[in-house]
Amino acid sequence: MSRPLVPRLLAEFVAATNGRNMTRAAYVVVATGSAMMGLITVDPAYEAAHHWVDAVLWACLAFFVFEWAVRLRHAFLAGHGSSYAISGRGLVDAVSAAAIPLALVLGASPKTAWLLGVCWLLKVVPGIPGLRQLRRVLVQESGPLSSVLVIFLMVLFLSSVAVHVLERDIQPVAFGSVPATLWWAVVTLTTVGYGDAVPTTPLGRLVAAMVMICGLGVFGLWTGILATGFAAQTRRDNFLKTWESVSKVPFFAALGPSAIADVTHMLRTMDLPARTMIIRKGQTGDCMYFVADGEVEVDLPGKKVTLGAGAFFGEMALLGNNMRSANITTRRVSKLLVLDLVDFRLLMARHPDLAATIDAEARRRALENR
Amino acid sequence: MSRPLVPRLLAEFVAATNGRNMTRAAYVVVATGSAMMGLITVDPAYEAAHHWVDAVLWACLAFFVFEWAVRLRHAFLAGHGSSYAISGRGLVDAVSAAAIPLALVLGASPKTAWLLGVCWLLKVVPGIPGLRQLRRVLVQESGPLSSVLVIFLMVLFLSSVAVHVLERDIQPVAFGSVPATLWWAVVTLTTVGYGDAVPTTPLGRLVAAMVMICGLGVFGLWTGILATGFAAQTRRDNFLKTWESVSKVPFFAALGPSAIADVTHMLRTMDLPARTMIIRKGQTGDCMYFVADGEVEVDLPGKKVTLGAGAFFGEMALLGNNMRSANITTRRVSKLLVLDLVDFRLLMARHPDLAATIDAEARRRALENR
Amino acid sequence: MSRPLVPRLLAEFVAATNGRNMTRAAYVVVATGSAMMGLITVDPAYEAAHHWVDAVLWACLAFFVFEWAVRLRHAFLAGHGSSYAISGRGLVDAVSAAAIPLALVLGASPKTAWLLGVCWLLKVVPGIPGLRQLRRVLVQESGPLSSVLVIFLMVLFLSSVAVHVLERDIQPVAFGSVPATLWWAVVTLTTVGYGDAVPTTPLGRLVAAMVMICGLGVFGLWTGILATGFAAQTRRDNFLKTWESVSKVPFFAALGPSAIADVTHMLRTMDLPARTMIIRKGQTGDCMYFVADGEVEVDLPGKKVTLGAGAFFGEMALLGNNMRSANITTRRVSKLLVLDLVDFRLLMARHPDLAATIDAEARRRALENR
Amino acid sequence: MSRPLVPRLLAEFVAATNGRNMTRAAYVVVATGSAMMGLITVDPAYEAAHHWVDAVLWACLAFFVFEWAVRLRHAFLAGHGSSYAISGRGLVDAVSAAAIPLALVLGASPKTAWLLGVCWLLKVVPGIPGLRQLRRVLVQESGPLSSVLVIFLMVLFLSSVAVHVLERDIQPVAFGSVPATLWWAVVTLTTVGYGDAVPTTPLGRLVAAMVMICGLGVFGLWTGILATGFAAQTRRDNFLKTWESVSKVPFFAALGPSAIADVTHMLRTMDLPARTMIIRKGQTGDCMYFVADGEVEVDLPGKKVTLGAGAFFGEMALLGNNMRSANITTRRVSKLLVLDLVDFRLLMARHPDLAATIDAEARRRALENR
Repeated sequence: MSRPLVPRLLAEFVAATNGRNMTRAAYVVVATGSAMMGLITVDPAYEAAHHWVDAVLWACLAFFVFEWAVRLRHAFLAGHGSSYAISGRGLVDAVSAAAIPLALVLGASPKTAWLLGVCWLLKVVPGIPGLRQLRRVLVQESGPLSSVLVIFLMVLFLSSVAVHVLERDIQPVAFGSVPATLWWAVVTLTTVGYGDAVPTTPLGRLVAAMVMICGLGVFGLWTGILATGFAAQTRRDNFLKTWESVSKVPFFAALGPSAIADVTHMLRTMDLPARTMIIRKGQTGDCMYFVADGEVEVDLPGKKVTLGAGAFFGEMALLGNNMRSANITTRRVSKLLVLDLVDFRLLMARHPDLAATIDAEARRRALENR
Repeated sequence: MSRPLVPRLLAEFVAATNGRNMTRAAYVVVATGSAMMGLITVDPAYEAAHHWVDAVLWACLAFFVFEWAVRLRHAFLAGHGSSYAISGRGLVDAVSAAAIPLALVLGASPKTAWLLGVCWLLKVVPGIPGLRQLRRVLVQESGPLSSVLVIFLMVLFLSSVAVHVLERDIQPVAFGSVPATLWWAVVTLTTVGYGDAVPTTPLGRLVAAMVMICGLGVFGLWTGILATGFAAQTRRDNFLKTWESVSKVPFFAALGPSAIADVTHMLRTMDLPARTMIIRKGQTGDCMYFVADGEVEVDLPGKKVTLGAGAFFGEMALLGNNMRSANITTRRVSKLLVLDLVDFRLLMARHPDLAATIDAEARRRALENR
Repeated sequence: MSRPLVPRLLAEFVAATNGRNMTRAAYVVVATGSAMMGLITVDPAYEAAHHWVDAVLWACLAFFVFEWAVRLRHAFLAGHGSSYAISGRGLVDAVSAAAIPLALVLGASPKTAWLLGVCWLLKVVPGIPGLRQLRRVLVQESGPLSSVLVIFLMVLFLSSVAVHVLERDIQPVAFGSVPATLWWAVVTLTTVGYGDAVPTTPLGRLVAAMVMICGLGVFGLWTGILATGFAAQTRRDNFLKTWESVSKVPFFAALGPSAIADVTHMLRTMDLPARTMIIRKGQTGDCMYFVADGEVEVDLPGKKVTLGAGAFFGEMALLGNNMRSANITTRRVSKLLVLDLVDFRLLMARHPDLAATIDAEARRRALENR
Repeated sequence: MSRPLVPRLLAEFVAATNGRNMTRAAYVVVATGSAMMGLITVDPAYEAAHHWVDAVLWACLAFFVFEWAVRLRHAFLAGHGSSYAISGRGLVDAVSAAAIPLALVLGASPKTAWLLGVCWLLKVVPGIPGLRQLRRVLVQESGPLSSVLVIFLMVLFLSSVAVHVLERDIQPVAFGSVPATLWWAVVTLTTVGYGDAVPTTPLGRLVAAMVMICGLGVFGLWTGILATGFAAQTRRDNFLKTWESVSKVPFFAALGPSAIADVTHMLRTMDLPARTMIIRKGQTGDCMYFVADGEVEVDLPGKKVTLGAGAFFGEMALLGNNMRSANITTRRVSKLLVLDLVDFRLLMARHPDLAATIDAEARRRALENR
């Protein structure tokens, strides 16, 4: 009876592995494997349960070997095998699968070989949410950031030489050479301050104090640059995400392109799974919603109304009545556009026709539900 | 004679406890209780005054038990007893009241049992000003923030493995296992830098230096994201707070909805207790005020003029005469709208009719007070 | 012969002291006094030169006593003596003059008594540039800032109790009581990390790691709030400073009030002492200047042209010719308005009449200087 | 045969040195020299290879002497010799060339003399990208920054005196004098926290805790100021860089000056070397490109189309078809203007005529390539 199950599971796994970056199973395996890999270095724990730890590690490895094989096969069948094999993702898959066996074959001790399992973590990278956004900020601000980095390195080197000269006779171990002093400098300039090397002469301390204040400055510059980049990127990303949805709502379609751009800046997209409560009766609200995709259910007394794509709800909160009057839940995976009170005011001011439409609909609903 | 007093106080306390999150008394009790709870762990202090400390602690506990009982009763009478009991606030109240006696009954030493009084602090949470705002920022920026957190964790794990490999032979205690090295990594990456574990090999230090610089980067990203979120949230909050008040000032009511949205962005709300001085004679001023709610008193030579909701004052400062010409104080709790010089200029430029109104009123007053 | 000099100097000093916050002499005295006060605590240095150090300190004290006397007399003559005496500045003056003699009379050792000279530093406070601006930011952002502070304190207390419970048996000195553990918590949460108290149990380290990451978060929130506040305040301050000057330039007077507000946002004020070079021949330039106050001298070949308030120069750099064609220096203290290339483009686009004026003037000058 | 080579190389080197800040060779020499200078202080390494290290160092020095000579000669021939000699760059060149020989002649030990090679690093300064921008931010924000610095110094001094008084009896070495305590204060206030001096009395720790929290505040202010300055500067810089290019694209030339300023804010400049891939077939795209300078090659099936300055491409991605349909590479050094989807929408909304032009061209191309 288990026979037909295994191939079915395999087939499902293969299908999932082909199409997606990482299956949910893969995340679990990476987490488990990494934890076990850490555990193998803790002698008492490993001695107590080494059979179990070894078994789990080998299972993880088997999983990654299998995953790599499935992906390689799929890529070759689809005709882009070599491009997958040398792509970043392909290389990570290859190293995850092959590095540990290779190390064991080459005679490394198991404890060292399994540490190569740290590569498994790199499989998670493409799945990090918002990574694209982070990378764009770093790329666009790379000019000033690298400028700060060069300044950082110059302060590091100049202060190392100065403190080396001032302290080398008194503390020959910590400050006896420029490379040794560089260690002190980097520990100080990043404000980590281990305290393993501390200048003791008055002049050395003066230089050190200036290095510390420079450290604050580097921090400040770095942060200032990133904050600026982020502000710009966030605005842009939100616009792109929202734009798609806005065009699907007939309510906005009547607006000219200029007004649509205007509206897009005001809306926020919200992706919700099925059966999520959006509005709870009796809560106070300060936003209204447009259904861009999916379906929501309004739980009115005695009946249930379904609103599909293009409909809007929650507008009463913006027209003077703060208390939500019904529970509203999603019926399936839905994409909503949220309009806050602030922006609602602005929108109504600039496009009075929209105001009229919303007002009429609200009145109609109020009458109906009376 | 004390009989009728106690029930009266009790009744007042019960009324206050029913209706509000935290009475002022409760704040005092939380602060006192927490301080005593700290004191109980200081042996010399506790030995010197253990009767007093114990008495205060039991009194605090009694207060919280009583508070819980009052709230439970009130909630059940109001028909939402069970929803209160399992709400966050209800659970904190329950734990505050029941955890310590339970621990004592179960045989924990008094010193340990009283430490559970730390739960009392959680009662303060709903009363923290601006917490809502903070939470919204964290929610809206949760995408990039969690992305940075994942990067943080990956750097942590990767650097731990690297430094473990490089340092395990030389410093088996601090770097002998991956979990032990993780401690070093988190201490370094957050730039805390205790100095209890410090890499000493050249390669280990190189990796450590890169971890430190990553630490700066994580700091910068984190801050940049939060700064961006805050800027957006602050603008929004201010608008919402001000909007309500603006509509109550007849002076602005004449404007169209577009202009009102415009004006709202320029004004700042100010809530003042009774008998507060707003303007001091002889100071220089750069803003004018509109009374949205309450009453203010102008202390003119020889007479006192009262201005109610809808009036404005301090406009002379914006019309060329910088020196305030009279003391102005609130007569009762008042809500003022503040218009700064900068925005006054812009407002006057865009809405010349408002300028004319203010100018006329200013002239009328100047004539009257001559 | 020295007789007439001393009273003259005194009279000058008295006049300066009456009218100003701090004379330049007072800054020197504060700096010298503070340095000497530091020196008095360094035993070898003080023993070597105690006559000199004592002499300087007594001289500084005499200066502050005299200053206080002069100010008190002036204030009483002007009829606001008591209000000066109890004002912040008056109290600092009083303490600066009276605290040290009083301490010496009351029997404090000289070394301790002179340390009270630290109050002298407080005299500098009103003279700090930009302090007003800083204070306004702190006041306006006090809501979220205090919210973060409360969160900071709660994390502090909660983590102290947790780590105390986890570490008290192993490290009774550092973690034996909650107040002792609070010291560890504050050192960790601010990422200072002395390393004098370090948790060693696995659970204690887990809590500590979470405290450190919270520390980063607190940093981030704090900075984000301040950055937001600063951005708003800077825009406002710049507008106010520039507004005054713009109205004095006839070139802009022709514009309507709306346009003036627009222009004011684009200009930057620059205060220059006499005989400062503004433009150096042969440099590349990307801004033009308007003289709001004072006089500048253009060093043309063979003649010198003086431009007074209301004139403009450097416009060639914005009309296509990047190379500055003459040296231009201030003749006396001058206030200039700077218009950058970016804003020049925008200005010209929105107000074509201004463009025509500047163009005509530039052509006239070019012809004249040919 | 080597004769004619050396003079030729020399001539090339001289020509490069005359005209440019730093030749690529000079960067290499600076890096090599600095590394060797660090190595000379590491005794085992230097002993093992002192002939090599010395040789490299002398070669670097020779290079800088030669460079200085070439530049001096060139400057004198061009008639601005003395102004070069006393300019910042000239002085750095002089010190780089002369300091080490001078120190050796004056009898300094070689190890100390070569450390003066740290001046070589200063030659890199003018070549740091974005330094101009950083400096402008620091200059424009110098007001609030120096205000924070003064506050920083005051907190430093006040807390030093307080902690000195509280701790001097218990820890006479670390806190015995105000200067010694200043070291503790600066280490704490910058959150470096070496742990070499730690207050132990309860009151001393209370003061220290407040200093640490002030440290966070100083951080926050500093960063907030810099972030604000950066945001403004970045916007300005981008405008200036883009403005030049926009005017060269005939497509935009038809717009009025106001619209051009508008467009300039939306575009981003991109400088690309020859033979760089801009668009890869099959990728998803969200921006279009205008060629401001240079030439790009479109790799269509069966033919290659060359687009010169003024042309645009990639517009399909913005007109609904996200998938890039051809590889596009630069043919020589090119300057492109990038228009993102967000801004494209806005542009089209505000300038419908541009939309029509792009649409027509896109249709023509689609037909042609069918």
